[in-house]
Amino acid sequence: MSARFLDGSALAVQIRQALRDRIAEFTARARRPPGLGIVLVGDNPASEIYVRNKRRAAGESGLRADLERLPASAALSDVLACVHRLNRSEPHDGILVQSPLPAVMGPGALQAVFDALDPEKDVDGFHPVNVGRLVQGRATLTPCTPSGIVTLLERSAIRIAGSHAVIIGRSDIVGKPVLLLLLQRDATVTICHSKTPDLSAISATADILVAAVGRAGFVRRAFVKPGAAVIDVGVNRVTDAVQAREILGIGNPRLADFERRGSVVVGDVHPEVAEVAGALTPVPGGVGPLTIAMLLANTLRAAEMRLDQSSNVLRDR
Amino acid sequence: MSARFLDGSALAVQIRQALRDRIAEFTARARRPPGLGIVLVGDNPASEIYVRNKRRAAGESGLRADLERLPASAALSDVLACVHRLNRSEPHDGILVQSPLPAVMGPGALQAVFDALDPEKDVDGFHPVNVGRLVQGRATLTPCTPSGIVTLLERSAIRIAGSHAVIIGRSDIVGKPVLLLLLQRDATVTICHSKTPDLSAISATADILVAAVGRAGFVRRAFVKPGAAVIDVGVNRVTDAVQAREILGIGNPRLADFERRGSVVVGDVHPEVAEVAGALTPVPGGVGPLTIAMLLANTLRAAEMRLDQSSNVLRDR
Repeated sequence: MSARFLDGSALAVQIRQALRDRIAEFTARARRPPGLGIVLVGDNPASEIYVRNKRRAAGESGLRADLERLPASAALSDVLACVHRLNRSEPHDGILVQSPLPAVMGPGALQAVFDALDPEKDVDGFHPVNVGRLVQGRATLTPCTPSGIVTLLERSAIRIAGSHAVIIGRSDIVGKPVLLLLLQRDATVTICHSKTPDLSAISATADILVAAVGRAGFVRRAFVKPGAAVIDVGVNRVTDAVQAREILGIGNPRLADFERRGSVVVGDVHPEVAEVAGALTPVPGGVGPLTIAMLLANTLRAAEMRLDQSSNVLRDR
Repeated sequence: MSARFLDGSALAVQIRQALRDRIAEFTARARRPPGLGIVLVGDNPASEIYVRNKRRAAGESGLRADLERLPASAALSDVLACVHRLNRSEPHDGILVQSPLPAVMGPGALQAVFDALDPEKDVDGFHPVNVGRLVQGRATLTPCTPSGIVTLLERSAIRIAGSHAVIIGRSDIVGKPVLLLLLQRDATVTICHSKTPDLSAISATADILVAAVGRAGFVRRAFVKPGAAVIDVGVNRVTDAVQAREILGIGNPRLADFERRGSVVVGDVHPEVAEVAGALTPVPGGVGPLTIAMLLANTLRAAEMRLDQSSNVLRDR
């Protein structure tokens, strides 16, 4: 038995194609494209890559994406000032603050920045108002990775209603919002974490297993019920040759990448899981591309809501 | 084997006693008592009783509690106007809108009213900002029944961290916030609902089982792992004699109450569960009294936060 691979890249291409048409419509109606302001602080190399990918995807879809760069030495107040400026900026419908912020800003900095966002421009869905609305089943801007996961399940015809979903990881960014989205779609949901005893036994009861732990190859065969759908949210850079070989397996063509670059990106799910799972998302090429597609969708959504609001204001005058 | 009964009434008395001292301190410092504004719309008999109990408890603790009554014929805009008035009212630190609102106002009315509350006076914790902050583990005003449940578990020395908690019911008022509070305390949590297959089998894996379904005697012996702690959030009025006898059991002294009044209040948990559970909250006298104690605690908390804020403003001048 071998799992069906859920091709997030191909689905993301489809979604982005459909978005392009809606973005063109918006642009014709509003006489400007939907606009995204991206705030990037410091020089984290992974963040540089993420931001480059997001800007490229935005551009290809017909969105305007402006990058606001702040140096690693920036103070929290500088970041907040930048956010306030984008909040008031007419051509910007969405604001994305790339995490992480420099560690020197302290552990509460990122949330302070999210709190400062205009909730209607919060395309990551991390402002408390948007989080609260998500709990209440009336989100307008839903966090990108979680909504990408749900979209992938739905478009892959994996039944959510009536299923038992187990989520490993309880972050605000992935674990908790995925829980809420699956619950809303009538799954019975269990959320596990580092303090869960018998993690593999609980995971093995899942029809849908979502791994968002951030540990390379953590989910092994014993975690997975035969036939389950397994969603791998992990993006782990492995730099140890022994670990890379252990996870990828001798003969895996990606080991050549490792030899060339000295590192390789792997998920939270060990490849051996493909032998028992019914469906599995690859890393890379699974959840990641959908996260970006959902960011574009949220930006368009925010733009449409703003446009509708301003035409209502005009009409009501 | 017979379950230990978790005496919510006795714990509520203790908590309210401790609150009384802190309320007296506040009153001395602020030269006024903490103030609660209660909005009651229409003439639902159960709501009348709830509001009377809340006002009495507030008065006994030294809180000021003012009742704003609106007729059943009131429009949503009247309720909103009342909330806006209380938002601006100096002596009112907390606002409680008694649910349900008259059905004629429509299904979205209650949430529209909660949305209109000043989040800092939202002692029920239902404003989206407060819900979002709860998800993010930084709530200041936590919904009363859920925080009563967690307090009862903690004060009864029932271990939450590392346990498996199963919640039956996914309401915004009980199920979801209990999930978040238990997760934050390192439980592994499963949330079930009307669409869950094998509900009794999943429930029977719980170390802590929270029943919030609103169906009299729904949770039977087969739902409960021997020794589990069972929290019964149900408040169901039974008016059918056969059902009352089936649930309470022949010879139960509460059947005499039923004969006299024509109804009796029972929980979601069938009394036979006492034979297998390790601990069980009675109905009445379990979670209910703690809900009121938490309302008083939230009102004091809101008052303290407002007072601290205004002294900060004065100091910063």
